[in-house]
Amino acid sequence: MPPASSAGATPRHLVRLHDLEPSAIDDLIDHAQRLKRRAARADLVGRTIGMLFFRGSLRTRTSFEAAVHQLGGHTINLNASSDFWELEDREGTVMDGKAPEHIKDAARALSHYVNALAIRPAPAGQSWAVDRRDAQIASWARHSAVPVINMESALWHPLQALADMMTLRESLGELKGRRLALVWVHSPEPASLAVPHSLLVPALRAGMDVSVAHPTGFGLDDGVVGEAQEAAARAGTKLAVGGSLEDAVRGADVVYARSWQSLEDYGNTTLAASRRARLSSWRVDRKAMELGRDARFMHAMPVRRNVEVTDEVLDGAQSLVQAQAENRLHTQKALLAMLLKVSGAA
Amino acid sequence: MPPASSAGATPRHLVRLHDLEPSAIDDLIDHAQRLKRRAARADLVGRTIGMLFFRGSLRTRTSFEAAVHQLGGHTINLNASSDFWELEDREGTVMDGKAPEHIKDAARALSHYVNALAIRPAPAGQSWAVDRRDAQIASWARHSAVPVINMESALWHPLQALADMMTLRESLGELKGRRLALVWVHSPEPASLAVPHSLLVPALRAGMDVSVAHPTGFGLDDGVVGEAQEAAARAGTKLAVGGSLEDAVRGADVVYARSWQSLEDYGNTTLAASRRARLSSWRVDRKAMELGRDARFMHAMPVRRNVEVTDEVLDGAQSLVQAQAENRLHTQKALLAMLLKVSGAA
Amino acid sequence: MPPASSAGATPRHLVRLHDLEPSAIDDLIDHAQRLKRRAARADLVGRTIGMLFFRGSLRTRTSFEAAVHQLGGHTINLNASSDFWELEDREGTVMDGKAPEHIKDAARALSHYVNALAIRPAPAGQSWAVDRRDAQIASWARHSAVPVINMESALWHPLQALADMMTLRESLGELKGRRLALVWVHSPEPASLAVPHSLLVPALRAGMDVSVAHPTGFGLDDGVVGEAQEAAARAGTKLAVGGSLEDAVRGADVVYARSWQSLEDYGNTTLAASRRARLSSWRVDRKAMELGRDARFMHAMPVRRNVEVTDEVLDGAQSLVQAQAENRLHTQKALLAMLLKVSGAA
Repeated sequence: MPPASSAGATPRHLVRLHDLEPSAIDDLIDHAQRLKRRAARADLVGRTIGMLFFRGSLRTRTSFEAAVHQLGGHTINLNASSDFWELEDREGTVMDGKAPEHIKDAARALSHYVNALAIRPAPAGQSWAVDRRDAQIASWARHSAVPVINMESALWHPLQALADMMTLRESLGELKGRRLALVWVHSPEPASLAVPHSLLVPALRAGMDVSVAHPTGFGLDDGVVGEAQEAAARAGTKLAVGGSLEDAVRGADVVYARSWQSLEDYGNTTLAASRRARLSSWRVDRKAMELGRDARFMHAMPVRRNVEVTDEVLDGAQSLVQAQAENRLHTQKALLAMLLKVSGAA
Repeated sequence: MPPASSAGATPRHLVRLHDLEPSAIDDLIDHAQRLKRRAARADLVGRTIGMLFFRGSLRTRTSFEAAVHQLGGHTINLNASSDFWELEDREGTVMDGKAPEHIKDAARALSHYVNALAIRPAPAGQSWAVDRRDAQIASWARHSAVPVINMESALWHPLQALADMMTLRESLGELKGRRLALVWVHSPEPASLAVPHSLLVPALRAGMDVSVAHPTGFGLDDGVVGEAQEAAARAGTKLAVGGSLEDAVRGADVVYARSWQSLEDYGNTTLAASRRARLSSWRVDRKAMELGRDARFMHAMPVRRNVEVTDEVLDGAQSLVQAQAENRLHTQKALLAMLLKVSGAA
Repeated sequence: MPPASSAGATPRHLVRLHDLEPSAIDDLIDHAQRLKRRAARADLVGRTIGMLFFRGSLRTRTSFEAAVHQLGGHTINLNASSDFWELEDREGTVMDGKAPEHIKDAARALSHYVNALAIRPAPAGQSWAVDRRDAQIASWARHSAVPVINMESALWHPLQALADMMTLRESLGELKGRRLALVWVHSPEPASLAVPHSLLVPALRAGMDVSVAHPTGFGLDDGVVGEAQEAAARAGTKLAVGGSLEDAVRGADVVYARSWQSLEDYGNTTLAASRRARLSSWRVDRKAMELGRDARFMHAMPVRRNVEVTDEVLDGAQSLVQAQAENRLHTQKALLAMLLKVSGAA
C-alpha cells in the first residue's frame, strides 16, 4: 500500500486525505469557506468530470455534481450496474476471465475525454487482506492521465474527511487540545471503515486527541492505526483505541458516530450479523452526550435514526450533521479548483 | 391527506395541480405559450435541479431535463435502482428495518446542493389505503428546504395535468361549457390513477363538464371524486361518474383515454389481470369518436396502439397526443420559473 | 435493408457510415483534425442531445457526452435497464404484448424535447435473419423529427468507423494502395460484427485493399460482404475474405483485430462457446505483426489483453488504439456540427 504520492508535494490525485500536508488541508478549508460565503464561480466552463460509480451513492454523487455545475462544468455519470462492466486491475494477466477490459485501457481512453475522474470502486467483500490493498483506485491513479478523485474505497473516503475537517474547524475554531471521540454504533447493516480511517490522521495532525471506541472484534485496520499512531507521535497528540463508548465520550468535544463492519467477520455475513445483534446498546443518546464537554455530534450519514443515534441528539442544537453535509459541497469545489488548477485555487 | 399548501397562496412545492388557483394555472399557461412561441431563456444559469426517480420514466425525465437545460440550468439524476436506497418516511420510528436512511435526512442534505427536487416516488403497491396517503412525496415536501415537484405519485401527476390544461386551452380556446369525456380503456398492464385524478378538479374549475366512464370495479379514488364534486358545485359545472364509454363520449368535445388500475383488486395482480381480460371492448376507435362533437382525442402516453386506441384515431387529425407531449416542455419551464422565482415568471 | 438515405445527399440521420460519400467523410475528418488541434467551440449552447442506451457503454457514452459538453450543449441519458421499457418497432400491430409503447410515439415525443437522438439498440440475439434488419434503429430514424445517430446496432457502428478512418488517415497519410488486414481474434465473449462491417466500405472506397481473416464459421454478413465487393469493384480496390490470420497480415500496413461472434451459431451460446474454445491460437502477437509492412495495430476496445492481443503489441509504438479512442471525441464533434448544422460544420 504505497502512498499515491510522496507527502509534501501537491498530489496529482486524491486517494487519501492525509496525502495532503496539514497546511494544504487548511488552505483548502480556507478556500471552501470563502466559496461558502460567496459562491464565487471558479472556472470549470468547458470542463467535464467523469464520475464512475461501482456502488450506489446519494450525497457524494449529488454534492459532487452540484459542485461541478456551480463552477460551470459538466459531469458524466457512469454506473457499473447499467453502463459498463467489471474491469481488470492486475497487470500482465491473461484476461480470459470475467472482466472484458483492463483499468489501464479504460483509464487511458477516458483521459482523452474528461478533465478528471471521480471514482467509487466496489470492494469484492470476500477478504480484507485483498480489499485493503485498494487495488482498483490505485490502478486508476496509476494509469489515468487526468486527476483521479477517490469517492470512497475500501480504506479511504477523503472527500468526507475533508468536509469533516472543515466542519470541526468551523464549530470549534482552533483544534489543538480538543478531544474527538470516534465511536462505533450499532446498525443492522454496517458501513465501511473508510470514514473513521480517513479522519484519524488529519485530526491527530491538526492537534486533536482521538479516542476510538468499539466492541471486541470491531478494531480498525492495523496498518491504518499504525500510521495514525506515528502521526500522533510526530504531532504530539494522543490516540487511544478500544474500550467503551462512555469512556471515549467522557470529556470529548466532539462525538463522531459510525457503524463500521467487523474485519474479523469480513466476508461472512451470517457471523457478522450474529455478532452485531448482541451490540444494540452501542447507541448515542442524550445521556451519552452529557458525558462530553458541551459535545457536538457528528455523523457522515446515511444514519439509522434511533438505532445508531436518537432523534433527540440528531436533531438537537449540538448536531453538526447538516453542516457536514453542506460542507461536502464547498470543500469539493475547493478541491476541484486545486486539482484542476483553475482560478480561485487555494 | 391535508393539502400541501392552503389554496390561494402560491404553493412552495407542487404536489397537486389544484393546489394552484385557476388564475394561477392560467398565468402558467400564458407564460408557457409565450415560451412556446419564442424560446426565451429564463435564467436558471448556475442552478441545479435534482431529479429522483424511484420508478422509470421516459417523457417526464426527458421533457423535464430539456426544460431545465433550455433555461440554462443543470440536472442531477438519481435512480433508485442503481444510485441509492429505500428511504423511511415515518417519523420517530426505530430504523432497524430495510431503509438505511430517513427522507428527512436525505431531503435536508440534498437541499444544500440543489435548487429544487423533482421526485417520482414508487408506491408500495400492496394496499390502496396506504398508498393513497402519498406519504413519500409529503415527507419530501415537509423536510425539503427547496421546492419539491411531484413527478407522479400514487394520487397525482400535476405536470401532466398542467400540460393537458394548456393543450385543452390551445385546442378549444374558452373551456366554459365544453365537455370532457375521461374514459377507461383496456390494457394488459394498467397505469396509475394519477393522470385522471389530476385533471378532474382543474378541468371542472375551468368550466368544463366532465364525464368519467369506466367498467364496474374501476372507480376513481372516493376522496378525489368527493373533492371534484365539491369543485364542480362551486364552479357550477357537472361531474358524472360511471357508465359506458359510449355514453360518456356522446356529445363530448374531448375524449381523454387512460387505462387505470382497479382499486378493488389493488395489490392482487392475478385477480386484476382476470378482471381486465374481460374488458377488451373498452377501446377508442373511429366509431366511438364519431359520437362526440367534432371531438379531439387525448392520451398521456405511453399508449398501447390498437389495444387502448386504434392507429386511425391516434394518428388522425383530431389527435392531440403530440401537442400534450410537446406542452410538457413549455409548461414545465413556466412552472420552474414560478417556483424558483426566476425572470420571466408568470 | 434499404439505406437510411440515398447515397450522395447529406443524410439526415447517421445509421451507416457509408451512407456518406468518401468526400463527405474526408470533410468530417478535416474538421475533426482542426478541432483536435484547437478545441474550437462550435455552438451547441442551448441544445440538448438525448442518448438512449438499450445496452451498456463506456467509451461511446463518455466520448459522446464529452463532445457535446465541449461544444457547449447538454446531454440527457436514458438507460433501458432503469429508465424505460421495451419499445415496439412493428407497424400496425395490436400491442397486447410486452412492449407498452411504440418507437413511433417515443420518437415523436422525444423530438419535441431534444435536438438529436443518439441510440444504441439491443438486438434480440435469437436470430441473425431478424437482427440484421436493424429494425429498431430504422424505426427511430423513420419516426424521429430530429437527427438520429446510431451508437452501434447489430449491423453498424458508424461512430467507431469514422474515428478509425481519421486514425488511418493520421497514421498513414494517403490511403490509396495501403493494405488493411481485418483479423478475427479469440475471446471468451465475442463482440458484435458492427465494427468490422462498418469499416469495410469506407476503407475500400478510400483506396485501401482489405483482407478479412477468420476461422471457418465466422464469416461476416453476406449482404455486407456483397456491398463491400461492389464498392471495391467501383473503387478499383481488392477485398479478400477468409483464410488465416498470418496470410491476411503478410504485407499489411495495418492489422485491425476484433473478436466477432459467429453468425452460424447466432443465438446458441453453448455451441458458440465450444466453437470458440478451439480457436485460442487466433491472437495477435509480435511474431504476427512482423509479417506486416511496418504494420500498425488497431482495436476498437474493449480488449482482452493477452487473449486477443499481447500486452507487447497493445502497448507498443505501433499501437494506434489510444489514437482511435481519442479520435472518437473529435470526429463526433465534427459529426454533430454537420448533422445539427451549427457553426464550424464541414
